[in-house]
Amino acid sequence: MARVVVDVMLKPEILDPQGQAVQRALPRLGFEGVTEVRQGKRFELEVAEPLDEVALARVREMAETFLANTVIEDFTVRVEEPVQRETAGGQGAGAPA
Amino acid sequence: MARVVVDVMLKPEILDPQGQAVQRALPRLGFEGVTEVRQGKRFELEVAEPLDEVALARVREMAETFLANTVIEDFTVRVEEPVQRETAGGQGAGAPA
Repeated sequence: MARVVVDVMLKPEILDPQGQAVQRALPRLGFEGVTEVRQGKRFELEVAEPLDEVALARVREMAETFLANTVIEDFTVRVEEPVQRETAGGQGAGAPA
Repeated sequence: MARVVVDVMLKPEILDPQGQAVQRALPRLGFEGVTEVRQGKRFELEVAEPLDEVALARVREMAETFLANTVIEDFTVRVEEPVQRETAGGQGAGAPA
């Protein structure tokens, strides 16, 4: 089983009201220094077949025709090793010890 | 300017109806071999200050208190180099030539 991640973000030239709402809220919560926030979607696909170029091309096709609205969105497709996620208070593998 | 990406996904034990809806639709669209789909949110934060450990800890705090609902969601925080995105039909840097 391989995990393929498809990230879908609005194209840079498209207004992102959700991202702007988050950005405006951050200073009110005491968080300074963030000049821009963009919000998009992340899809994690568990792909059963061996993950060769044909399978990756199929995932790219899924992204282009179904997961992303390519009129207003761009996407990236990448294979990802399962990452240990951070839970509230816990130190994830990615975090400094 | 540095880009920090916060990925927010439902905890594995939490039902993901959106992901299931996508997964059920894929075979109808002719896409086989995807055994599971999880859908979450991706935040791209452009951070102005020099990106040291203190700044990263602040972003983790933002994620924990605001971007993720840590009762039902986990998150990952990572620094990302700007990636060239794939647009419809175009070959992104990530894609094989």
